[in-house]
Amino acid sequence: MMSLMADLTELPRRSVWHGWGDPTHVKPLPTGGWPLLKFLGGIEPAAQDTPPVALEDVRLPDVRLSEAAREALVAVVGESHYSTERLDRVEHAGGKSYPDLYRLRSGDGSHAPDAVVFPGTSKEISDLLAACVEHEIAVVPFGGGTSVVGGVDPVRGRFAAVISLDLRRLNAVTSVDPVAQTAVVQAGARGPEAEAVFQRHGLTLGHFPQSYQQATIGGYLVTRSAGQASSGYGRFEENVVSVTMATPTGELVLGGRAPANETAAGPKLLDVVIGSEGLLGVVTEATVQLFRRPEVEHQETWALRDTVTGFAAFRDLAQELGHGIMPDVSRLSDDHETTTVMAQAGLLGVTGMGVLRARGWKAPALAVFQFEDGDKETLRFRRKRLAKVLKRHGAAKMTDSIARHWMSHRFRGPYQRDHLMDHGVFVETVETATTWDNLEHLYTSVQSAIREAIGKGWVQCHVSHLEDGGASLYYTFMATGESDPLAQWARVKTAASQAMIDAGGTITHHHAVGTDHRPWIDEEIGDGGIRILRAIKAELDPTGVLNPGKLIPEEGGAQ
Amino acid sequence: MMSLMADLTELPRRSVWHGWGDPTHVKPLPTGGWPLLKFLGGIEPAAQDTPPVALEDVRLPDVRLSEAAREALVAVVGESHYSTERLDRVEHAGGKSYPDLYRLRSGDGSHAPDAVVFPGTSKEISDLLAACVEHEIAVVPFGGGTSVVGGVDPVRGRFAAVISLDLRRLNAVTSVDPVAQTAVVQAGARGPEAEAVFQRHGLTLGHFPQSYQQATIGGYLVTRSAGQASSGYGRFEENVVSVTMATPTGELVLGGRAPANETAAGPKLLDVVIGSEGLLGVVTEATVQLFRRPEVEHQETWALRDTVTGFAAFRDLAQELGHGIMPDVSRLSDDHETTTVMAQAGLLGVTGMGVLRARGWKAPALAVFQFEDGDKETLRFRRKRLAKVLKRHGAAKMTDSIARHWMSHRFRGPYQRDHLMDHGVFVETVETATTWDNLEHLYTSVQSAIREAIGKGWVQCHVSHLEDGGASLYYTFMATGESDPLAQWARVKTAASQAMIDAGGTITHHHAVGTDHRPWIDEEIGDGGIRILRAIKAELDPTGVLNPGKLIPEEGGAQ
Repeated sequence: MMSLMADLTELPRRSVWHGWGDPTHVKPLPTGGWPLLKFLGGIEPAAQDTPPVALEDVRLPDVRLSEAAREALVAVVGESHYSTERLDRVEHAGGKSYPDLYRLRSGDGSHAPDAVVFPGTSKEISDLLAACVEHEIAVVPFGGGTSVVGGVDPVRGRFAAVISLDLRRLNAVTSVDPVAQTAVVQAGARGPEAEAVFQRHGLTLGHFPQSYQQATIGGYLVTRSAGQASSGYGRFEENVVSVTMATPTGELVLGGRAPANETAAGPKLLDVVIGSEGLLGVVTEATVQLFRRPEVEHQETWALRDTVTGFAAFRDLAQELGHGIMPDVSRLSDDHETTTVMAQAGLLGVTGMGVLRARGWKAPALAVFQFEDGDKETLRFRRKRLAKVLKRHGAAKMTDSIARHWMSHRFRGPYQRDHLMDHGVFVETVETATTWDNLEHLYTSVQSAIREAIGKGWVQCHVSHLEDGGASLYYTFMATGESDPLAQWARVKTAASQAMIDAGGTITHHHAVGTDHRPWIDEEIGDGGIRILRAIKAELDPTGVLNPGKLIPEEGGAQ
Repeated sequence: MMSLMADLTELPRRSVWHGWGDPTHVKPLPTGGWPLLKFLGGIEPAAQDTPPVALEDVRLPDVRLSEAAREALVAVVGESHYSTERLDRVEHAGGKSYPDLYRLRSGDGSHAPDAVVFPGTSKEISDLLAACVEHEIAVVPFGGGTSVVGGVDPVRGRFAAVISLDLRRLNAVTSVDPVAQTAVVQAGARGPEAEAVFQRHGLTLGHFPQSYQQATIGGYLVTRSAGQASSGYGRFEENVVSVTMATPTGELVLGGRAPANETAAGPKLLDVVIGSEGLLGVVTEATVQLFRRPEVEHQETWALRDTVTGFAAFRDLAQELGHGIMPDVSRLSDDHETTTVMAQAGLLGVTGMGVLRARGWKAPALAVFQFEDGDKETLRFRRKRLAKVLKRHGAAKMTDSIARHWMSHRFRGPYQRDHLMDHGVFVETVETATTWDNLEHLYTSVQSAIREAIGKGWVQCHVSHLEDGGASLYYTFMATGESDPLAQWARVKTAASQAMIDAGGTITHHHAVGTDHRPWIDEEIGDGGIRILRAIKAELDPTGVLNPGKLIPEEGGAQ
């Protein structure tokens, strides 16, 4: 069987402006998909298709850069790396959130930046920041542009003009150290670009978020990306050895004197930069910890009697087996997601559901696992331990093909959204995390909130990213599009977010804060947390040119 | 065989003022100890014993608190928890560094605080900070008082008076959640006090630094403590779920909405508090991640041909086996430390060395390991994997009793120092960490620097705290005391520290910065790092009353 690791070095073209990735990869729903959505959630395609408008029909605001400002920017990057072209402005008008895409698809380019710059060196980035301070231009760092929370939206803030600073030219793996198993990588390298180099050295970063094919190393870093295999390789933040960041007040180099985390020389200041979402500076380069590339991998499928039984089993996987023994990826679909995953698996899934229902399981929960190991013996041992825990919770073994099918489609989710949006369907995902004792409460609270807000529709969820203390919840929901899709989105998103906070969860496990989660950040980190962030921001970016409108609430409490 | 876990809930009395722990536990060197030191390093006891002076002979400065200040402090804690008693002032005159102890033992109490306060609640701590701001009193948070880097030395800074704020009354485990496996613990609880409660719930914190018996939860947190089993349970910082900290500008509560680390809601601000060494506030309480208490444990001893072969083997343990499979404790003694460990193991050690020399190994390196597991099957598997890697590097299996002997003495090291100081011997430990590619270079550089600075003496080292990217180095060195022991200490300490920085290591893997490592902090974290720390300090403690003279260099570059 083909290794799924092989997928990881394929670099698709950069995302089309109105959707995800290479638009030729968008696939219609499989046969029976629409009837299934109708049956499950009363979801119907719009009477008329809702494709994106033509590029030339996107309404763009005038470029508001003064001639002096333009000259200052061009002086740094050169004419050929400064652009006010329609396509560049539209491609940088937002990330890939539902509202970002909806606006552009319907011709609203009002969020577009005044210009896009493509610096080629960290020196140029420092110089660009200086020019932005001097000419009072807001600047939005832009990596893969995959934010689903408005993180790269060109918000002007108090500034007349805003530019997008695209890091695509800084895409090199500068060096790989095979002994320390570390690499120095420029911030603009996309996942597959970097991974291709690592794998040639027999190494891997082990970091594979759903946005993997488009997102960049710098993006992973500034958003505290988790990656699907965080139970195995750790979150991205755990594997950062050092960071170089250009700021309006000088270049910052943090870390580098010890392996990741392994120092007691004061607070871990790397964690000020990690998750800073472009508000403190532009990360230009990072040294990351790599791992020996696995020799064997294995996917495995099980089912639990119901969702809550699955929660208990997953808790034991984390707390009894722990890191290194529990699977590198563990994912429990609730009964609703189980229905759609099984349906997507075709005949295998139908057969599987038949077998489970014959056991009297009315609402089974599917569990898929991925192991990556250096040798077969370790894999065998870990599988045995997994089986032992799952059997204690009465789990049923299913064909591994279902898990393989899920793994081989793990980067395809965003493409399906494009197809649904082409047919006027509202679709969104939200995610949170909490401790094991609070998991069921958070699960039902957010589910209820989404259901109530969405009305007729479909809500499904999975548990993943197992840790000793808890796990994450990831919801996908859909409904027939309403007449005002942005109001529909805001209503459901707000209800889901407030429910997360009210039920004691985090506002985001791995999507970051951006603009969309900012209304809840004060409840998440408290006044004290906001004061600390503002103090650091004031020190590094006193004029506030960097990524206004994200993460940190405005002074005075206005959002 | 008795489980070593059983040791962990024994709470010895608090340290005597002139040394470590309960002075009745100080043991003389074993028979042959002095001749061995003489043989190895030309180290001889002083002609006359050098015991500590009597308590009443310690010279203390006058109490410099105004009557108004005294009244303000007493108003908060009450007369019975405010002290200017000789014993209290002497006990809080410093931590347990060599210079701290030397000064007190020789009668110099000039570092003593003007008073010691023992608050009973977090509200009292907040009120004390307010009183200190109002009356311009420097305040030094004091947990177990185990700092070996001057971290709790009562430095006055720009203030006329300084008090020590002892947290011993906040020693409760407030709650344990058996599902999330977390506990809320007050900052002043010592390791064994907290662990006793955890173990009654079948749980463990898994955090056992050498200072374990005396140090506190709050101390572990503000110094980024590693713990001997960090390869298994993680460093302390990895297991902090939330923190409550009293600051002069209000109470700060960070974390708590997600399991440790599992959020992407902006920078991980917990890491601003972790490692802050009492400069930003007084940690009053923390929620920590616990683990299921191991059912089985095992110690194992091996030897490698030489130290450098050991480095390569240990790298493979970390990078090939990884967390969860590699031992929870791995410790490689260099050839010098091997000599003394084997000598201390008595007949077993002599026999062992004989066997190794018969192989033609002139300078073997001893490796001791500890496993802790939930079941015998996992233990068996991990031992097999360990053996496979070690054998590939030509390692020889030794009797496990040597490792058991080391483990059962792991909290005894500091007691030996007292005995040596009673006989005028200079003894110190320093530690650092680096990446695997740089380990041998750092090892030899620091070793050479210490040897050169120490002259006639003994230097030994071990590697421990294995991580994917690197490991730590821990040096112990001794010499016959010179006529000016503080000058002797400063000369060797400075040489070792400068060598760490020059050879690319960190100034401290787990001892923290305090006063003693502060001269190197600018090289460690750079101007940018210092600016960030100062900005946070200015926000939370604008008058600077908290722990002056530690961690952050004075503005203007003066140390």
